Amino acid sequence: MSDSFSSSDSVRHARPLKHVQHAVFDDPLELEYGGRLPRLTVTYETYGRLNQRRDNAILLCHALSGDSHVAQHDERDDPGWWDLAVGPGKSIDTDRYFVVCPNVLGGCRGTTGPNSTNPRTDRPYGAEFPVITVGDIVRVQKLLMDRLGIERLLAVVGASLGGHMVLDWATRFPDQVAGAVAIATSPRPTSQALAFDIVGRNAILRDPHYCGGQYYGNGPGPAVGLALARMLGHITYLSREAMTQKFDASRLEPQEVQTLFEARFNVGSYLAYQGDRFVERFDANSYLRLTMAMDLFDLGDSPAKVAKALCASRCRWLVVSFSTDWLFPPFQSQEIVRALLTADKPVSYCSVTTDCGHDAFLLPNELAVYGGITSAFLDNLHTDSREPVSADAATIAEAADGENHGPTSIYRHHRLDYDSILRLVPPGASVLDLGCGTGGLLTRLRDNGHYRLVGVELDERAILTSVRRGLDVVQMDLNRGLEDFSDGQFDCVILSQTLQAVTDVKRVLADVLRVGRQGIVSFPNLAYSRWREELAEHGRAPQVEATEGFHWYDTPNVRFFSIADFEQLCAQENIRIDQRIAVNTESNRIVFENPNLAADVAVFSVSRHRSVREKANSIPSKITASP
Amino acid sequence: MSDSFSSSDSVRHARPLKHVQHAVFDDPLELEYGGRLPRLTVTYETYGRLNQRRDNAILLCHALSGDSHVAQHDERDDPGWWDLAVGPGKSIDTDRYFVVCPNVLGGCRGTTGPNSTNPRTDRPYGAEFPVITVGDIVRVQKLLMDRLGIERLLAVVGASLGGHMVLDWATRFPDQVAGAVAIATSPRPTSQALAFDIVGRNAILRDPHYCGGQYYGNGPGPAVGLALARMLGHITYLSREAMTQKFDASRLEPQEVQTLFEARFNVGSYLAYQGDRFVERFDANSYLRLTMAMDLFDLGDSPAKVAKALCASRCRWLVVSFSTDWLFPPFQSQEIVRALLTADKPVSYCSVTTDCGHDAFLLPNELAVYGGITSAFLDNLHTDSREPVSADAATIAEAADGENHGPTSIYRHHRLDYDSILRLVPPGASVLDLGCGTGGLLTRLRDNGHYRLVGVELDERAILTSVRRGLDVVQMDLNRGLEDFSDGQFDCVILSQTLQAVTDVKRVLADVLRVGRQGIVSFPNLAYSRWREELAEHGRAPQVEATEGFHWYDTPNVRFFSIADFEQLCAQENIRIDQRIAVNTESNRIVFENPNLAADVAVFSVSRHRSVREKANSIPSKITASP
Repeated sequence: MSDSFSSSDSVRHARPLKHVQHAVFDDPLELEYGGRLPRLTVTYETYGRLNQRRDNAILLCHALSGDSHVAQHDERDDPGWWDLAVGPGKSIDTDRYFVVCPNVLGGCRGTTGPNSTNPRTDRPYGAEFPVITVGDIVRVQKLLMDRLGIERLLAVVGASLGGHMVLDWATRFPDQVAGAVAIATSPRPTSQALAFDIVGRNAILRDPHYCGGQYYGNGPGPAVGLALARMLGHITYLSREAMTQKFDASRLEPQEVQTLFEARFNVGSYLAYQGDRFVERFDANSYLRLTMAMDLFDLGDSPAKVAKALCASRCRWLVVSFSTDWLFPPFQSQEIVRALLTADKPVSYCSVTTDCGHDAFLLPNELAVYGGITSAFLDNLHTDSREPVSADAATIAEAADGENHGPTSIYRHHRLDYDSILRLVPPGASVLDLGCGTGGLLTRLRDNGHYRLVGVELDERAILTSVRRGLDVVQMDLNRGLEDFSDGQFDCVILSQTLQAVTDVKRVLADVLRVGRQGIVSFPNLAYSRWREELAEHGRAPQVEATEGFHWYDTPNVRFFSIADFEQLCAQENIRIDQRIAVNTESNRIVFENPNLAADVAVFSVSRHRSVREKANSIPSKITASP
Repeated sequence: MSDSFSSSDSVRHARPLKHVQHAVFDDPLELEYGGRLPRLTVTYETYGRLNQRRDNAILLCHALSGDSHVAQHDERDDPGWWDLAVGPGKSIDTDRYFVVCPNVLGGCRGTTGPNSTNPRTDRPYGAEFPVITVGDIVRVQKLLMDRLGIERLLAVVGASLGGHMVLDWATRFPDQVAGAVAIATSPRPTSQALAFDIVGRNAILRDPHYCGGQYYGNGPGPAVGLALARMLGHITYLSREAMTQKFDASRLEPQEVQTLFEARFNVGSYLAYQGDRFVERFDANSYLRLTMAMDLFDLGDSPAKVAKALCASRCRWLVVSFSTDWLFPPFQSQEIVRALLTADKPVSYCSVTTDCGHDAFLLPNELAVYGGITSAFLDNLHTDSREPVSADAATIAEAADGENHGPTSIYRHHRLDYDSILRLVPPGASVLDLGCGTGGLLTRLRDNGHYRLVGVELDERAILTSVRRGLDVVQMDLNRGLEDFSDGQFDCVILSQTLQAVTDVKRVLADVLRVGRQGIVSFPNLAYSRWREELAEHGRAPQVEATEGFHWYDTPNVRFFSIADFEQLCAQENIRIDQRIAVNTESNRIVFENPNLAADVAVFSVSRHRSVREKANSIPSKITASP
């Protein structure tokens, strides 16, 4: 077969599995939908070693068609489905962590499922295998953790259906999970994703060889139906972009495959191959039960319900999505993040830019980002983020801060505006930093003893650096509003050199004062004397920049305003100015006289007027009247 | 059934069709893939009357599962599949136009197809029906037009697969088509769309009741396979957003449907219903042949190939796509538009914002836009756009221009900057107007006798107005570059009050001078005396606006620069300034002295330096040195 046909998801064990272990549980399991399994076998594999404190165990939850063989145990071993990310020195480093990956309940690779013998009838369960839920799957995983003597998991990690397990773990067993890594998953499938599963199940159920589910040792089984379901699945795992790249150039040149399916187009031969191969290794009844478990998974259809569901968790969270994933689209991960933020849970979130669609987590293309952020998150869990950052992390972070500032930047050596902002933040306050960059300000706040700190940032690499620093940072576009945050959620919301780069200034300010009791806003003052001069004397657009090296035609700034302009907007929008610090960064000093002329940067502490009367009594801006 | 189950696409004739006509052709038809049909019947319906000049005929091409019954003929008639858009006084006005809609070759609603009797065997063709192409379908439609005595069609209109027919018509019979309306279509299916068709066909072909295609009068036929294909189709016709709206609230409450398919979820009962209904009215062999015709449709995989394919056309074009259509996504319509622009064909294009996905053209939600623009386009074809605009259209346009300017706008009564721009455009030059708004400038250029005029605009409503004015306007985001246009394609490219609203100034300017031999750029001059004063004297951000009523926090402008700034950028970017007109709109006069101080608007005519020597000899900007 050509290379384009082998994907991480489809290369499977030609040889019998090694290193596979089994745990047998003789107590019956009552299932959430009313069924009952009298006896259980759980098949699993482990990697690395459990340390003495038993605090380095990671549970890996596989997706729909995965199994316990997540990685090669040695060079002679078969490839695992996530060799990319799991192994010595890899993102999930088996030199440091003890990784456990069980085949899920209802699967067909060792753990009790429809192809297991029903002790009551002495033949395979088949369609008599009860309906199972993600909760049932998780409870069985928990039995295994108990058996292995793991009281508390360092982390539960899973993608897709495995991500649903992560969500369930964190809320069902909150005291047993320190960290949750939910990749490419959702609070529940979209109706579109549900629809694809339904068509796939219909193809199996209406295949005449399904034989009511008792096809074992009884003819070919529903091979056509299962293959059709798999073909359909494959389309949803790839993005449109990935399919174009993979198949468009030689659209009319199919690979040579032995198949009874249409193989006229290149993509047709691919689908036929994937369908046929899947039938060799997967059981149709497992496919029915596991897709149904996914379809029944449902944290709720509103942000409030999802927040309520996730409220019970007591772990740190990392949520990762992929930009072109249309089966579990980024907005669904954002729903999870929003719920966690609403419930005041520590969470970091990154939507990884990729062409690879849902399958991205199985592919090397974006491993540096999704693997990097997972590794950094686990690292911080392990070393406990509240201790001082390690020398290593500090070095990384300093280098990162440096990156953003050119050699002539006013912020290269010392951030006087940070000092001013820090002075305005009350001791111990919870802080949301909007446009936090690589986390420089948040790190200083943490050093000052603040501990409920959240950053918002758009740039993927900056988020990665922030997470390396042990910070909680979520990816979000400020121009789309802050609806992920609830009213009065933070003591203090900071816009540090950010307001001039957003288009909808009024909306962002309104959001700041909805989410925070106090807002701290710093920005460059257009009316600074040197910049006035540039326009008045030379007829040139002032080079108003937080960081230099930009021009009027390429600056990230899109709004230009003075201290006086800002104050007038505050008056108009019923915003109270509680404090203001005007800074001249050229002379590195605070400005007291004529700030609208003498300061190049201003820092304001603002809040909402509590009453009309208070507003009437407030001192009208002195600065507005000044030149 | 609940309302949510009836869509324009699925409500079909319970009673026998009326008003259906048949044309029989006894000459054999040789097909593009080598087959041969000895005899043809074409079933069609007509609406309205052919006028004496025989120049008001519109051919409507239906999509995959449509038929000749596009609209009700009278109140007692069955609903048609496009009653929304076709009828007296509607978008395609049967009081004015003579509309012909034939069932396509290979269909199953009257025109010769797999369920027709094969004269050679005296039984239905079944799988012996030859492979057909969109070209074959179009040639059969042409036979019908000849039979009806229609030498030249006013327009060919079609969506989806019908849009492929439009593309084929315009290039196969260029002299027989005055206008082409291609809706929600593509130069060829994406590999993703192809993949869905393949899975659908596999479901039919591997259905044991398919019986090698000879299932007629022989058991149930491949009902399960065809229903699965239809379910899958339905998912692709709806957007994810539409499915969420339709099914999410009552996800676990299926409608009561009589079906053998899974009907556990709300969306499941919908799919089951759609699948079962389709089997009652459609023939599986037609489904196989028509999806294959669509999958084989291929104008090429590169912009150059598509341009070459469309080069033969000699009609005016209207291309319409829908923002959430993921089966025929907007970028594919843009590929068609790009090819037409490259080939210098007159084209208008609008991507309609909608939640409705591919099905949007069958739904009322966005009818005002897609129907309105189609109606305007047909209107202009009919009256010949090169005659002066009708009083009606002029009124619409004037009102539209007025809309964009507040009562204090400098442009409300007279656009002095337009006069200046018009003075700079050489007589008869071809002109591309970037950010053309409602087409005010283009209309004046047309009045001056220019006839190769193209507008680019982002706003849907402005595009609609421009098309009403008989202009060719394409929707495009300037910030994404002008790659749809080829080098030196226009004599003149205009940026009228647009440069200050784009972020990537250098790229846009480079594009302007790549696509045009001459660039004309007008913008507000930040260094105008009154604006300097605002900053210098009052410490306030100048309210630099092309149209007033905006503030620093909500202006559409994101770049602020003076005449001197612009000139310096030109020098730096190797752009030659050929002419400049500085305008003071407050005193309504041209400024000669100190333009960087005295003018609030500047108009530049620029071009590329042809050699280094020329650049060295060019007069350095006098203005740059001025205050």
